[in-house]
Amino acid sequence: MNLTILFGGASFEHEISIVSAITLMQKLSNFNLNFIFCDTDHQFYIIDKKDMKAKTFSSGAYKKMPTLSLSQGAFNQKTMFSKTQYRYVVLNLIHGADGEDGTIAALLDFYSIKYIGPRVSASVFSYDKRYTKWFCAAKNIKCLEYEILNSNEHKNISIKYPIIIKPARLGSSIGVSIVKDESELDYALDTAYEFDNSVIVEPFIENVKEYNLAGYMADGEIKFSIIEEPQKENFLDFEKKYMDFSRSESVLKANISTELEQKLKNSFTKVYKNMFEGALIRCDFFVVNDEVLLNEINPIPGSMANYLFEDFLGVIKSLSSSLSEPKRIKVNYEYIHSINSAKGK
Amino acid sequence: MNLTILFGGASFEHEISIVSAITLMQKLSNFNLNFIFCDTDHQFYIIDKKDMKAKTFSSGAYKKMPTLSLSQGAFNQKTMFSKTQYRYVVLNLIHGADGEDGTIAALLDFYSIKYIGPRVSASVFSYDKRYTKWFCAAKNIKCLEYEILNSNEHKNISIKYPIIIKPARLGSSIGVSIVKDESELDYALDTAYEFDNSVIVEPFIENVKEYNLAGYMADGEIKFSIIEEPQKENFLDFEKKYMDFSRSESVLKANISTELEQKLKNSFTKVYKNMFEGALIRCDFFVVNDEVLLNEINPIPGSMANYLFEDFLGVIKSLSSSLSEPKRIKVNYEYIHSINSAKGK
Repeated sequence: MNLTILFGGASFEHEISIVSAITLMQKLSNFNLNFIFCDTDHQFYIIDKKDMKAKTFSSGAYKKMPTLSLSQGAFNQKTMFSKTQYRYVVLNLIHGADGEDGTIAALLDFYSIKYIGPRVSASVFSYDKRYTKWFCAAKNIKCLEYEILNSNEHKNISIKYPIIIKPARLGSSIGVSIVKDESELDYALDTAYEFDNSVIVEPFIENVKEYNLAGYMADGEIKFSIIEEPQKENFLDFEKKYMDFSRSESVLKANISTELEQKLKNSFTKVYKNMFEGALIRCDFFVVNDEVLLNEINPIPGSMANYLFEDFLGVIKSLSSSLSEPKRIKVNYEYIHSINSAKGK
Repeated sequence: MNLTILFGGASFEHEISIVSAITLMQKLSNFNLNFIFCDTDHQFYIIDKKDMKAKTFSSGAYKKMPTLSLSQGAFNQKTMFSKTQYRYVVLNLIHGADGEDGTIAALLDFYSIKYIGPRVSASVFSYDKRYTKWFCAAKNIKCLEYEILNSNEHKNISIKYPIIIKPARLGSSIGVSIVKDESELDYALDTAYEFDNSVIVEPFIENVKEYNLAGYMADGEIKFSIIEEPQKENFLDFEKKYMDFSRSESVLKANISTELEQKLKNSFTKVYKNMFEGALIRCDFFVVNDEVLLNEINPIPGSMANYLFEDFLGVIKSLSSSLSEPKRIKVNYEYIHSINSAKGK
């Protein structure tokens, strides 16, 4: 199978996207893979497999690789006398801005390139944590209570300490702080505001039970990964999470009741259906007093949560073949014709 | 002032976008205007002013005009030996799909081209009527009660007749029906499902008071248009609305109390703030029992609602100069460097 892995992007998560791509090169070695890198200037490069190592990017060596441009259905590599076209299904592996905010989705939609990843609306509802809360309210999905703070206005927080403060539009724990009492608040807010003008405040629940579940839609039904109880400290800081993006070893299934498993799957289905079709997503849930709460939607999880699936090659294959065909509206200029004929033109 | 008007798009509203563009050519004749046409195959063309008439498009004559490609900061016209770049602020005038669904916004964001129009998130919340309802709930903006129907499932409607049925993702009254009783329902649903798998059902209120108000943010504050009470029948069908997109004559201010005017402006402000910055939008409100209800957000109103502003040239000038600069994240490869140095590389 041919597959293009698109990674990089102008994002705080640029580097973890590179780590994800290198991990998938190993996990998907049976496929015929192409690697397209998007640098922070939004230039696309085709990267040879042998150059798929972190240093190619950190040293700037990628700038000597061939650049690509977009046209209908393809990324194009032009030399003086020839043109190579990459017309394969794209796996959007750009974490954070560009990849998860809808930009890359819209770009690929516009150029009619099929891709694995969230569509534009799904991106908007998962990338910005405020809109995830709106989405939960509309879909009747339980989640933690929250408040929004903006850098340009002062507002008292009514949620009881300890609280957790997150920039509204960043993943991978960047800019996130746990705040035990008011004395720590200003510093935590300053940290978060470095990354976003809006921050979200939630209660912080010590030792909360956490479960991760990934899945995707293929052949008209949702296919689930195993459920993992992530082994971790209070929360992952960026460097730990960074390493997390290179995970490739299978994990153990969480030891939970069939009832809880079903609850988690039901909540996942509510999130996924009529919104995330085309994507493989990972939902991170909390369980508080037997109640399943959605913590986060990862519409492009680190290394595509490969470690949660037994047959990851099969997953990507069936997802690829379930992608809907790009639709294009035809215009017959009926109204202009009828107006012109009314005018005698 | 230089300004590029981008119009067309692969949308059911393709033709009214052409009408809008021709209207703005007249209204903005003091500017140095460029016209970029996006055809239904997503090819961009530069259209000479003298060719800006409906027939150029309906006859297919536009296909002989020079094509354009995108690069950072510009639309580019290439000939054998030279390249002309169009680096001006773009007025996104593509109504409906492409223009209002976030696609064009993301494309212009990606290529760092400044534009007048809704950003990606704002597009998602205004283009799909379901998400507009979610937005209203989150922002505490009053609107009509509603239900969602999907073409693949049967559901009884609990809203009392008469009702109005609209495809979730189309503007300009396309596919919209008023349904007086159950006998008319199936036909109305079939009509709406031709355009979208999801439809929205709302109560239909005969002779409801309706008011339109447009506005935009410039110099840190919202500037309002006059408030119009649109003179119309029960609702505009597509052909009437089509003519509506060529409006250029000023209208009379609605004769309403200062109190109602303030209520409408307050509701507009709730819609606009922290979401529609960069765009000139028109909100269509109902007034029922003295209560202001949001009916619709038009993030790219027909002919930019020019007829609601006294100094439309000044509006476009001040909006253009208030657009924020494209931001680009810089990556210093700090994490890759630190991991490589830990590994002794």
